[in-house]
Amino acid sequence: MRKAEETRERILIAAEECFAQNGYDATGVAEICKRAGVSKGAFFHHFPTKQAVFLELLNRWLARLEQQLEEMLLGASNVPEALLKMVETTRQVFEVARGKFPIFLEFLNRAIRDPKIWQATITPYRRYRAFFAKIIEEGIAEGTLRPVDPEMAANAMLSLAIGLVLQATIDPNGADWSQVVRHSVRVFLEGTVGDYQSGNPGH
Amino acid sequence: MRKAEETRERILIAAEECFAQNGYDATGVAEICKRAGVSKGAFFHHFPTKQAVFLELLNRWLARLEQQLEEMLLGASNVPEALLKMVETTRQVFEVARGKFPIFLEFLNRAIRDPKIWQATITPYRRYRAFFAKIIEEGIAEGTLRPVDPEMAANAMLSLAIGLVLQATIDPNGADWSQVVRHSVRVFLEGTVGDYQSGNPGH
Repeated sequence: MRKAEETRERILIAAEECFAQNGYDATGVAEICKRAGVSKGAFFHHFPTKQAVFLELLNRWLARLEQQLEEMLLGASNVPEALLKMVETTRQVFEVARGKFPIFLEFLNRAIRDPKIWQATITPYRRYRAFFAKIIEEGIAEGTLRPVDPEMAANAMLSLAIGLVLQATIDPNGADWSQVVRHSVRVFLEGTVGDYQSGNPGH
Repeated sequence: MRKAEETRERILIAAEECFAQNGYDATGVAEICKRAGVSKGAFFHHFPTKQAVFLELLNRWLARLEQQLEEMLLGASNVPEALLKMVETTRQVFEVARGKFPIFLEFLNRAIRDPKIWQATITPYRRYRAFFAKIIEEGIAEGTLRPVDPEMAANAMLSLAIGLVLQATIDPNGADWSQVVRHSVRVFLEGTVGDYQSGNPGH
C-alpha cells in the first residue's frame, strides 16, 4: 500500500473507533488525528470534513453488505432460496450494525435538518430499495413469487429490515432478533409466494 | 382548568413547538419558558428537566395512538378487519409522526448511551409490542389467524411499523407510504391468515 493510502486507511479506522466509542457529535477531528497518529494537515489532505469520513465509512459498510447479498442471489437456485440464505447472515449483520447503527441514527438526525447530508444519506438507501425491487422482479419473472408490485414489496421488505435493525440496536436483549428475522421472512414469503413451505394445496 | 394545570399545558405546548422547530438538543429550557410565557421557577416546579417534558409529550402521543388502536380493535368483528381498520389511520399517524419522529430519533441517540433515558424510552415501546402480541393472540383464539408465535409476529409487525415510519420521515416523497402500508399489511395477512382475500382453495 502506498503511504498516502495507508494514512487514509489509518484515519478511517481511527474514526470508526472514535465514533463507536463516543458518538459522532462528540468526536472531533483532533481526536481522530490523535488516535490515527496523523497531523491535521494529513487529515484534511484526505477528507474535507468529519462528515466526509463518516460517509466513506457508511458507503464501505453498505457496499460490502450489498456485495454479500448479490453473491447470495447469484449462488441460489431461485429467489425464495436467496432470501432465506440472506436471513442466515442476519446474526453477522446485527453484530456489525450494533456498532454502526447508533452512529447512523445520529447522522439521520442531521440528515432530516440538512439537505446536503440528506442527499448523501438517501443515495445508498435508495440503492438498497432498487436492489430489493430487482430481486422481487426476478422472483416474479422466474415464477416463484406472485405478481406483486416490486416497488411496493421492496419498500415493505426494507421497512421490515430497517425496523428490525433499529429494534435490535435499541433493545438487543428484548428478543431473539435472529429468530424474529427468520419468522418475518417466512411470513413475507408465505404472503408473497402463497404456498411457500405451507404444504397446502391451491395457489 | 386550574392555574397550575394551565401552566403545565402551556409548557408542554411550547416545548413541542420548540422541539419541532429546532430539534431536541438545540432547544433550551430558557427558550421553552420564553415561548410559554412562564418563569424558570414555574417550569422547574412542573418538570425536573427538559427530558421530563419530552417524555411526557412522547407518552401522551403514544397513549393517544394506543387508545385509537384499542377502539378499532373493539369496533371490529375480527382481528384481520381490525388490522385493516388500523391501516386506514396510517395517513394521520404519518402526519403526526413527521413532526415528532425526528425528535424521537434524537432521543433514541441518547437512549443508546444513557441507561436512564433508555429505560424511559423502552417502556412505551415494549407496551406496543405487548399490545400487538395481544391482538395476534386474539386472532389465533378466534380462528382468523394461523397459530403463529404471537411474540414473534408482534416483533415482526412492530419492525415493519417502525421501519415504515422511519422511511416515511427520512424520505417523505420517496414513495406513497400509505399505499406501502396497505400493501405490507396485506402481505402480512396473506402470510398469517393464509387464504386472506386470495380467493384460493386450500388452507
